[in-house]
Amino acid sequence: MITLYDFDGKVKHPWNVSVWKARYSLNFKNVPYKTIWLEYPDIEPKMKKLGARPTGLKPDGSPMYTLPVIHDHTTGAIVSDSALIAEYLDKTYPTTTQLIPTGTHALQAAFREMFGSKMAPLALLVVPQVINKVVNGPSVEYMTRNYLPKLGISNLETWTMSEEERNEHWEKVKALLGSVHGTMKAEDKWIMGGEISFADFVVGSILEMMKTTFGTAGEDWRRVVNWHDGRWDRMMSELEKYSAVY
Amino acid sequence: MITLYDFDGKVKHPWNVSVWKARYSLNFKNVPYKTIWLEYPDIEPKMKKLGARPTGLKPDGSPMYTLPVIHDHTTGAIVSDSALIAEYLDKTYPTTTQLIPTGTHALQAAFREMFGSKMAPLALLVVPQVINKVVNGPSVEYMTRNYLPKLGISNLETWTMSEEERNEHWEKVKALLGSVHGTMKAEDKWIMGGEISFADFVVGSILEMMKTTFGTAGEDWRRVVNWHDGRWDRMMSELEKYSAVY
Repeated sequence: MITLYDFDGKVKHPWNVSVWKARYSLNFKNVPYKTIWLEYPDIEPKMKKLGARPTGLKPDGSPMYTLPVIHDHTTGAIVSDSALIAEYLDKTYPTTTQLIPTGTHALQAAFREMFGSKMAPLALLVVPQVINKVVNGPSVEYMTRNYLPKLGISNLETWTMSEEERNEHWEKVKALLGSVHGTMKAEDKWIMGGEISFADFVVGSILEMMKTTFGTAGEDWRRVVNWHDGRWDRMMSELEKYSAVY
Repeated sequence: MITLYDFDGKVKHPWNVSVWKARYSLNFKNVPYKTIWLEYPDIEPKMKKLGARPTGLKPDGSPMYTLPVIHDHTTGAIVSDSALIAEYLDKTYPTTTQLIPTGTHALQAAFREMFGSKMAPLALLVVPQVINKVVNGPSVEYMTRNYLPKLGISNLETWTMSEEERNEHWEKVKALLGSVHGTMKAEDKWIMGGEISFADFVVGSILEMMKTTFGTAGEDWRRVVNWHDGRWDRMMSELEKYSAVY
């Protein structure tokens, strides 16, 4: 049994893009797991106590802890970072299909880097929405203090985004997904053609986050499902079998 | 028989990074070819006459022609852009090993995009050297007019770069190669582990350009061969069998 640590929220569905990559991976590898939901301020003390590895540094140079983290009670391993979790699962549970097919390790890393480097425009669309609609009080306070200044938002209550600016940001998100679509053949179901891999979970996690954050009823999600000949809508349907929440 | 169009120079070895990707590909696919060497100002009229596709737009919005371009006299095909040439060769000469292994099309594209997006620091190291030591008069004039302003160099004769700035640029080039090295296992000979692919030619072409531009005797190339446990020196040795110039 594995414990997966995820960000709590008042929506009754996981919303965090990074943790989705780990959840997809666990479901795909068919490894039993159970989620423990944490509020932002509780992550650092909990992860320190658990002995999880920090995933970066805070601006003051001290270690930064973030999720996903898994604790594999069978092996005792505690693994931070979704890509390292995927590698760990491939290595520890080799009898199921690989998340990172042999020979694609460096290419998959390049895909993540390319994709991640273009995700910034999404933050200004998603973070205010997450604070306003998705997370609970303690996380609202934490995200307001730590994330909004980076986005240039000093007061979320008075902050507005013009329709034009909003459309510009959506166009950049569309271009990011378009850069993936443009390298896939029309008949390809997955990034690697017929074979699913971790790269699909990287893309799927963004889609899951947008879907949960904006809801499926509004115009935001309707935009996404219409992009690129409906590719992302089909991908989300295909990903449903790896989307269970335990 | 295929004609490969490449940039001429006074050094008796091909130096252009983009054309190296096509040359490696042709050698790897074992397709007979012969190089035609062009000076910069002759590329546009020659490519227009040949009916080659432009690869981008100039600042004034008119079509831009660049090399490599191949003309396959067997099929009549004229193909611009090294990645499209690789795809063309895989499709047209499927009996030899694939440059872009099945299923890796989008991942290879992501690798090229990631790698290419970080190459800017190399330009300020390489372009002045190419103008001063590598190309002939007509190309010197063309590159001086078209490339130096973009690098912020108004007069190459009086331009200097401080040792500190130079080291900073080399550190960024090292970081670019380091980001590839960091995703490869120590025992991996190629980006895809044991299997060579177009991604290796992307990296190898940068190495070839640096080697030819700086020469193997000076400190610049000696830096590169010492980076990352000598990985790039070994890679260059392995790539020698695909480095013939016809």
